[in-house]
Amino acid sequence: MVNTGSTPVTVIGLGAMGQALAEAFLNAGHPTTVWNRTAARAEPLVAKGAVRAETVAEAVTAAPLIVVCVLDYAAVHGLLDPVADELSGRALVNLTNGTAQEARTTAEWAAELGAEYVDGGIMAIPPTIGTPASAILYSGSQQAFDTHSTVLDLLGTSKFLGTDAGLAALHDLALLGAMYGMFAGAFTAMAMVGTEKVAAADFTDELLVPWLNSMVAVLPLLAAEADSGEEVSEERKLVERVALTNIIDTAKAQGVAANLVNPIQAIKDNT
Amino acid sequence: MVNTGSTPVTVIGLGAMGQALAEAFLNAGHPTTVWNRTAARAEPLVAKGAVRAETVAEAVTAAPLIVVCVLDYAAVHGLLDPVADELSGRALVNLTNGTAQEARTTAEWAAELGAEYVDGGIMAIPPTIGTPASAILYSGSQQAFDTHSTVLDLLGTSKFLGTDAGLAALHDLALLGAMYGMFAGAFTAMAMVGTEKVAAADFTDELLVPWLNSMVAVLPLLAAEADSGEEVSEERKLVERVALTNIIDTAKAQGVAANLVNPIQAIKDNT
Ligand SMILES: NC(=O)c1ccc[n+]([C@@H]2O[C@H](COP(=O)([O-])OP(=O)(O)OC[C@H]3O[C@@H](n4cnc5c(N)ncnc54)[C@H](OP(=O)(O)O)[C@@H]3O)[C@@H](O)[C@H]2O)c1
Ligand SMILES: NC(=O)c1ccc[n+]([C@@H]2O[C@H](COP(=O)([O-])OP(=O)(O)OC[C@H]3O[C@@H](n4cnc5c(N)ncnc54)[C@H](OP(=O)(O)O)[C@@H]3O)[C@@H](O)[C@H]2O)c1
Repeated sequence: MVNTGSTPVTVIGLGAMGQALAEAFLNAGHPTTVWNRTAARAEPLVAKGAVRAETVAEAVTAAPLIVVCVLDYAAVHGLLDPVADELSGRALVNLTNGTAQEARTTAEWAAELGAEYVDGGIMAIPPTIGTPASAILYSGSQQAFDTHSTVLDLLGTSKFLGTDAGLAALHDLALLGAMYGMFAGAFTAMAMVGTEKVAAADFTDELLVPWLNSMVAVLPLLAAEADSGEEVSEERKLVERVALTNIIDTAKAQGVAANLVNPIQAIKDNT
Repeated sequence: MVNTGSTPVTVIGLGAMGQALAEAFLNAGHPTTVWNRTAARAEPLVAKGAVRAETVAEAVTAAPLIVVCVLDYAAVHGLLDPVADELSGRALVNLTNGTAQEARTTAEWAAELGAEYVDGGIMAIPPTIGTPASAILYSGSQQAFDTHSTVLDLLGTSKFLGTDAGLAALHDLALLGAMYGMFAGAFTAMAMVGTEKVAAADFTDELLVPWLNSMVAVLPLLAAEADSGEEVSEERKLVERVALTNIIDTAKAQGVAANLVNPIQAIKDNT
């Protein structure tokens, strides 16, 4: 247990992620105040030493650093707009998933209130919070980030992307989109081999994971090609079109929906 | 240079992949006959010791083991149907990308001719052929696979999936679909951060590759859940819907096509 200083921190929102965030602060012996709409979710944290605020106002005034992690920005503003007057002089670190535009608008709103706003994107799942394996992207107020980076580093590996508050969300959503593309392809693959009674777990362990790892390793090459504007050869495009048609035909013949592959084919057909 | 025995091998089709296959046989000192529609593509291989057949018939009769790797099954049959009478008693290993149905139909066709048919799917790119990093999936005639596995192992790590000739194609296409899903998501991600002048290479090296590696590592867990028929919680579904809406809204606001993410959202909305 390392105490990283006395700056207290407040965590608002104790869902799966908010609980993990508060726990990481508490594990480091950091003075932590928590608040959640459903108050009972604070109990395990109180047992670990957290102070449970009775109201959002009490939570906000308990610390110079306020970390918010709720479902969406509507929830963020539903909670904070009524206590806006209390935000002046504090650092608000919003780890709620939102659009780049929502982050920028919220940064302006906070600036008008005299608060320092940092937007964040958590590239991790709750069990890895508090370990270096969890990457957290930040953007917005450089001053607030620098002041509180020691505390924020308790959550994982922090990366500050710039003073445009929308940058963390932009990168976060880009990465999530890549993940959903990979997951969608992976689930379609499991469904395809499942039609011949192959267990998803066996296929995934033996073939899918090693294959995707080797293909992720090719991405830096493809990215460098994208940056240089290099054109894909006509031969390569033809080979890809045959393969995509074969994927869709085989998925259909085996009774698997190819919804996820169709738009990829449409794009390849138009290039 | 290891000579793995005297069984000669023939390679038909010397595109990017066929050349790599022939080269792996030649590097092992294996007697290799080659044929390609555009004859000039055989030259570098002849310089390495390959025998160039003048006709497909000559290529087929030169060896008991014939490896075919051309663009598609139409090309396979365009080449082999005219010399069908020469196939009896030989092993035909077809590494051309095709549907599971095409593989099954070709297996029946070969059986009627008295040939042993093995269908294959190459899960590798040409530069890794001849190394253990290249996985090649096989299905069809177990006898032919067993007889020639020492020679086939020269190409990479061989996996025999079963006697249904369609299994290699099914697994191959499932894996390719997963790859295209991942690539599509990755390219959309590069385009999204590119709107704020972030170089694709920097984003890919620093964030995308580590993130996707950590998410590929989650797949075995998701596959086990899929096998057990476990339901995703309503809370998790809601968080995912918010994130997908945010991805699509931000892509649109930044001027990036979200074609690849839309069908994923449609699927999540219907579950
Ligand atoms: N879980 C992950 O793996 C993960 C990973 C990266 C990022 N994130 C992001 O972290 C954020 C929270 O996710 P989570 O997994 O913790 O979700 P969760 O377990 O569903 O929790 C949602 C939280 O938001 C609160 N909330 C929802 N609507 C509210 C409203 N109108 N007013 C006040 N509070 C409200 C909930 O309060 P109640 O308890 O009262 O319902 C709960 O504290 C999301 O933006 C998500 O995208 C999650
Ligand atoms: N390259 C890869 O990374 C990769 C990876 C895994 C699997 N594969 C599979 O391997 C196969 C070959 O791919 P590749 O990359 O080698 O493609 P490629 O470089 O475009 O070569 C295509 C080959 O097919 C021949 N061909 C095309 N149409 C023909 C026809 N009608 N009659 C006779 N020959 C014909 C070409 O002959 P010419 O030289 O006369 O044009 C050439 O030998 C494909 O099924 C592909 O999906 C490739």
